[in-house]
Amino acid sequence: MSDIVFAIDLGGTNLRMAAVGADGRIFSEARTKAPKENGPAGLLDAIGMLADECRAALDPDQKLVGFGAGIPANIVNGPVRGLPNFREIEGMDLGSELEAKFGVPVVLENDATAAAIGESWLGAAKDVRDSIMITLGTGVGGGIIINNEPIRGIDGTAGKIGHINVEPDGHPCKCGSKGCIEEYASATAIVRMARESGLDVSTALEVYQVATGLQAPHSTLPTPHSAEVAQQVFDNVGRYLGITLGSLVNVLNPEMIVIGGGAAGAWDMFIDPLTTELNYRAFPEPAARVKVVSSSLGDNAGILGAARSAFLSIL
Amino acid sequence: MSDIVFAIDLGGTNLRMAAVGADGRIFSEARTKAPKENGPAGLLDAIGMLADECRAALDPDQKLVGFGAGIPANIVNGPVRGLPNFREIEGMDLGSELEAKFGVPVVLENDATAAAIGESWLGAAKDVRDSIMITLGTGVGGGIIINNEPIRGIDGTAGKIGHINVEPDGHPCKCGSKGCIEEYASATAIVRMARESGLDVSTALEVYQVATGLQAPHSTLPTPHSAEVAQQVFDNVGRYLGITLGSLVNVLNPEMIVIGGGAAGAWDMFIDPLTTELNYRAFPEPAARVKVVSSSLGDNAGILGAARSAFLSIL
Repeated sequence: MSDIVFAIDLGGTNLRMAAVGADGRIFSEARTKAPKENGPAGLLDAIGMLADECRAALDPDQKLVGFGAGIPANIVNGPVRGLPNFREIEGMDLGSELEAKFGVPVVLENDATAAAIGESWLGAAKDVRDSIMITLGTGVGGGIIINNEPIRGIDGTAGKIGHINVEPDGHPCKCGSKGCIEEYASATAIVRMARESGLDVSTALEVYQVATGLQAPHSTLPTPHSAEVAQQVFDNVGRYLGITLGSLVNVLNPEMIVIGGGAAGAWDMFIDPLTTELNYRAFPEPAARVKVVSSSLGDNAGILGAARSAFLSIL
Repeated sequence: MSDIVFAIDLGGTNLRMAAVGADGRIFSEARTKAPKENGPAGLLDAIGMLADECRAALDPDQKLVGFGAGIPANIVNGPVRGLPNFREIEGMDLGSELEAKFGVPVVLENDATAAAIGESWLGAAKDVRDSIMITLGTGVGGGIIINNEPIRGIDGTAGKIGHINVEPDGHPCKCGSKGCIEEYASATAIVRMARESGLDVSTALEVYQVATGLQAPHSTLPTPHSAEVAQQVFDNVGRYLGITLGSLVNVLNPEMIVIGGGAAGAWDMFIDPLTTELNYRAFPEPAARVKVVSSSLGDNAGILGAARSAFLSIL
């Protein structure tokens, strides 16, 4: 009899589930489009269908002992809050609903914190005690691990690294502030900055896709001008990430910073300016200590982190 | 037989010592000028003299069981590092020296972290689990308490809140970067900003002293112009502190921020712009949660925090 947990990762595009063992082995996986209609009932139905699919691939001696969910929300005991991309489930008591549905203990984690837990458990940060994860996706997310424990904050809203300020009077941010790092390092921001440098929409998108490897390897940018703009944009991305990470290195003195998310695919275009800026901003000792590396679990970081939290909760 | 520890607070101006009980009661105190000559030997001599003074005031049944030291340094196991104001003891193995001298276990803490521990133990933050302390002195220092534990970082350099960046191309900072919050909220920065607004040196100093209460209560600024400049300067102090604390609130979701240090005496002149900016920069939920309060232990925060660490280490 071996124990497994179900873990889900609710993203803006997809809802994914996996059956995961205590050692992180993934026994089965399923995914569907993120259920944005029919509110709480629609989400629970979708999770139920994925669970059936995952269960079908399991051995009879594998026993479900817990459920972990990484969701793009502030996790407080009780209702989930602050889901700009899933307003229809705002306030839903997802933990209780899932416990009722599956009959096992449920742990909810913020999605970026779940990714940080995953990388700390089995990924790039598995051999270090203190690490910071930053994800460059549609937005910029983050998670902080200190003494091998995630920092969740008193209300579960901690880890919003994307909303560290880097330009007091900078670009307006969806959060209501101005000049958050999210406005200089997210996929959205990268495309915006390419447009601000004079590229048209489709070329700006192409710049993003080629730089991050979303287009076929070895594809090149259409013109020397767009290639030049691309490098300028990523110089800026690297510079602002370096400023942000420099502040975090001064405050937390971590061993490692793990960078993930789609825009991390443009690693070679931003890592040098990032490193230069980080070394300029942070004190020499913690700057020399910290290793900046790319995520090693990719899309699975969040689902594995949610699984880890589920296992830890039933120990 | 009651147990006491000796605790010291090494500052730029004074070296202070107290004999402290397990409940935080201070049984005796002594102080001397910070020993900046004669290097390690001079520091140990000064500590020895203060210890004799403290001991003389103790009851015979009080037993020394530990020693805690808050020092303006990066605390790593072994040598103390990064003491811009005490270069002559850079690299000294202070912990081993004190253990040899006093025959009890010794704990070293960064001074700002010690202040945060003190406020968390017996001061403004005693009823909360997660708090941030920021001290506005000659520089800007900080300490972070999560789950009632200080964040020291992997090398003991964590907590450098004064070196969070708030203006990428801002005023040069002693740390080598530009635009750290220290350059907009320290005593030094306040006087500089008053001068940049056209005041002469002595009026700028007077602005600082009157605003922070260092001059007699109810003293007023010499001219309406200097009073106006003073408010502009502290509007700026509050704004930049609000930006910094907004970032920290987004990242750590703490229950409380404790502001101490000499410049905190100008509370009424900066707290409104600080609060306005913090609410603008941080997400609504953690912004509504966090209480911003002034230090309640004042100068004793560091010495009590060092004492607390000493007691915890011998449990």
